[in-house]
Amino acid sequence: MSRVRKRNRTDRRQAKRERAQISATLVQPGNSLPAYQILSPDNLEIIHQRSLQILSEIGILFMDDPESLEILQAHGVELRDQIAYFAPALIEEYVAKAPSQFIQLARNPERNVIVGGDHLCFAPVYGPPFVQSLDGGRRNATLEDFQNFVKLAYLSPYLHHSGGTIVEPTDLPAPTRHLDMLYSHVKYSDKPFMGSVMSAEGAADSVAVAEILFGADEIREQPALISLINISSPRRLDDRMLGALKVYARARQAVIITPFILSGAMAPVSVAATLAQQNAEALAGIAFAQMVEPGTPVVYGSFQTNIDLQSGAPVFGSPESQLALIASAQLARRYNLPFRSGGMLASSKVPDAQAAYESVMTMLPAVQAGVNFVLHAAGWLEGGLTAGYEKFVLDCELLGMYHKYLAGLDLSEEALSLDSIRTVPPGGHHLSTEHTLRHFESAFYRAELFDYNSAEQWQAEGSKDAFVRANAKFKQLLQNYQPPQLNSSVDEALLAFIDRRKAELTH
Amino acid sequence: MSRVRKRNRTDRRQAKRERAQISATLVQPGNSLPAYQILSPDNLEIIHQRSLQILSEIGILFMDDPESLEILQAHGVELRDQIAYFAPALIEEYVAKAPSQFIQLARNPERNVIVGGDHLCFAPVYGPPFVQSLDGGRRNATLEDFQNFVKLAYLSPYLHHSGGTIVEPTDLPAPTRHLDMLYSHVKYSDKPFMGSVMSAEGAADSVAVAEILFGADEIREQPALISLINISSPRRLDDRMLGALKVYARARQAVIITPFILSGAMAPVSVAATLAQQNAEALAGIAFAQMVEPGTPVVYGSFQTNIDLQSGAPVFGSPESQLALIASAQLARRYNLPFRSGGMLASSKVPDAQAAYESVMTMLPAVQAGVNFVLHAAGWLEGGLTAGYEKFVLDCELLGMYHKYLAGLDLSEEALSLDSIRTVPPGGHHLSTEHTLRHFESAFYRAELFDYNSAEQWQAEGSKDAFVRANAKFKQLLQNYQPPQLNSSVDEALLAFIDRRKAELTH
Repeated sequence: MSRVRKRNRTDRRQAKRERAQISATLVQPGNSLPAYQILSPDNLEIIHQRSLQILSEIGILFMDDPESLEILQAHGVELRDQIAYFAPALIEEYVAKAPSQFIQLARNPERNVIVGGDHLCFAPVYGPPFVQSLDGGRRNATLEDFQNFVKLAYLSPYLHHSGGTIVEPTDLPAPTRHLDMLYSHVKYSDKPFMGSVMSAEGAADSVAVAEILFGADEIREQPALISLINISSPRRLDDRMLGALKVYARARQAVIITPFILSGAMAPVSVAATLAQQNAEALAGIAFAQMVEPGTPVVYGSFQTNIDLQSGAPVFGSPESQLALIASAQLARRYNLPFRSGGMLASSKVPDAQAAYESVMTMLPAVQAGVNFVLHAAGWLEGGLTAGYEKFVLDCELLGMYHKYLAGLDLSEEALSLDSIRTVPPGGHHLSTEHTLRHFESAFYRAELFDYNSAEQWQAEGSKDAFVRANAKFKQLLQNYQPPQLNSSVDEALLAFIDRRKAELTH
Repeated sequence: MSRVRKRNRTDRRQAKRERAQISATLVQPGNSLPAYQILSPDNLEIIHQRSLQILSEIGILFMDDPESLEILQAHGVELRDQIAYFAPALIEEYVAKAPSQFIQLARNPERNVIVGGDHLCFAPVYGPPFVQSLDGGRRNATLEDFQNFVKLAYLSPYLHHSGGTIVEPTDLPAPTRHLDMLYSHVKYSDKPFMGSVMSAEGAADSVAVAEILFGADEIREQPALISLINISSPRRLDDRMLGALKVYARARQAVIITPFILSGAMAPVSVAATLAQQNAEALAGIAFAQMVEPGTPVVYGSFQTNIDLQSGAPVFGSPESQLALIASAQLARRYNLPFRSGGMLASSKVPDAQAAYESVMTMLPAVQAGVNFVLHAAGWLEGGLTAGYEKFVLDCELLGMYHKYLAGLDLSEEALSLDSIRTVPPGGHHLSTEHTLRHFESAFYRAELFDYNSAEQWQAEGSKDAFVRANAKFKQLLQNYQPPQLNSSVDEALLAFIDRRKAELTH
């Protein structure tokens, strides 16, 4: 305490800059709160049994990939017309081979993340071909946008992961852009990142990059990549995803098996049927990964919402999707698997009230349900078609709040502080009690981008709403950004690999 | 079904207008989901025991109201310097006299509300002296604003209650404005409403209005008023609130006993200490109400958040307040009492992303924790200083979502619909299955004010954000408003009473 007091103002400013600059305080929250559950054990069993029925009677299509069919057959799966029928015992046997949690390596070992158990990992938005900002409007995403978002994710102490295709760099040729994305993740961040799933070749390139960074043996011990294998519901894994899945499983890299379901389109309109179908699809993918390579780290993924039955458009933040999300977390726990869901999902085109309502309506239930990996935890707009710069930094404020929320309730004698209650007379105040002075720095989370001033002061400062304040914030962050150190020989090896692969892919 | 099909377009338009106009479909949601809990039974007991210690050792000030002190003394409470020290057995004995749930009468009996058990009741914002809208900016609230908000609450199928001082009509003289507010609730709505707590006289006037509407005997059987008794924390009930409380208890009208606590100012900075203090204060008020009149319907209230320790301003939607809210619900259930908390609370000055993030961060945990009565469920801005017109109608969309959410998961065979899953081939779609056609009208909640269109269409329609869309919506609602029928002899009796009381109060 006395040391802190002796620091002069310059020191403190310097320290504050450093804190803002480098997310040195990155802490992955451990969820100390009980998981919220809505299904009784009996009802959970109904969904489970129904999904086993789908797996054994109705089946899952493994499309246009003869090798996958061979693998399935060799492991005792019944096949007819490329459709796999899984016996319940087979599902049980292979799903049980997946680890219940694992560590993903980051090139800065302090940024390694635990995936599973009581741990949470927040990753940025994935996939949008467009970006949006207050002054730039909506436009095609470029590599510069991609790198900007990698930088913003690096700078947030509340994002534990650099993500994958944060935006599609549409200014680059499609066959090679995965190489530029991989390099950008390594160059501009030191957090863990995701592999490419565009093709088996893209997956192999991702593994090669991880081997350059960590060593071929090391990444077989602990995965350095986590990649998103979407199941194209209903009941179908296509050759592209199967190709990437096999590459990652054989390299023992982690995969998130996620049925992508809009109820009413890819599944029935009811949440219960959607859950049974989603569970069947996820279990099929997970069991298949274990058949390819037993012990492959997998995450049970859920990406479910419903369509607007008037327009057919997806609706984010819907009450039905919250129910599905909470029940899905219970299913993942039933199989002792890490769970992926949630995100700051929104249908809105801009970071307005609609976007924020929708985002919290998806994200808070995820956090409460005991999610382990949250893709799209910052930046998502327009049903995932757009990454918003302002939305990104605003969402990060909420992620900060969740860190505090997940820490739960301190019931120590110091926290109960009956003595402090005793010292303040009726109608008095606690502003300057010894207890308050002891704890005031860490007592409450403070959202830097949220305005708590009086209306008069807010007006005097220009009546700036959250959109306007966030615009200034993301620009300031990018302006002050400094890249993390990257070993020059590693950098050269990466660049040489990428040059070679670009030449091969564009021959 | 055939009847529906035969209706011509004019009929359907008419029906749609009626549905929009009169909230005939008002349904109070019964919470079918398990309550989210974060305290183990042991930890709940720690908070309970600590609050008993506060009640017996540290005491609660009953300020400047000799009659209240006499009542306390007559019931065995120890007094020193107006501070009441409650023995644990006394608290237990009197708190147990309160009913676990009750019905509040509405002048339209179809709008009677159940307060307690698994039932939820949403009421509008309470107390702001200012109003805000996109074109009107922020300005002093008037009686016209008050009436506008009564009308908007009447028109929403998701608000079950007309509330109380929705806004302060600052254009009216303070001593008589409660009469104008009471009359406006009766005239422009037929939903239940709240009594005045400005003074014992205001409370008596509220009871008189209820007697005119329902009859003096009838309201002793079932309360026609519910009123907000705030405890001015720390540990103090003032003569104004005690005066109103006694009037309502003697008339057997319901009271919500709510400690108003900003942690860091009115309680220690820790959530645990705040909970113990809040519980002690609430139990003191509840036990006192039962000493005045055993069986008085009471609601255990919690209105807790923290201050921003930089500026001293209250912070809404904070993670700490969510923890306190969920734990408070557990405390209320421990005493078998209805619980009041939550609301669409926000610090933001306008209905921007900040306001929406904050609102859901308070409201969703309340709904999940099993709240029974939610004041401020629509319209709140700027820490409660402002009622927003656009915020009001936007919040109502979320209330609609919660109705759907609270209905929970249907696990019937029809919902599980294995047959429907069977009929759709891998990669096919469910858009036109028989199952979808059977359920598409009611399958998903649709927020009318939220935009689910493509970005192109949204731009073509003027790139209207939620604030702009809500502006058009509230104006359209007010323009089309039609008052509910009011018996002319009741109306005359009310007006005569109000005239007489105004003359008496301004003599």
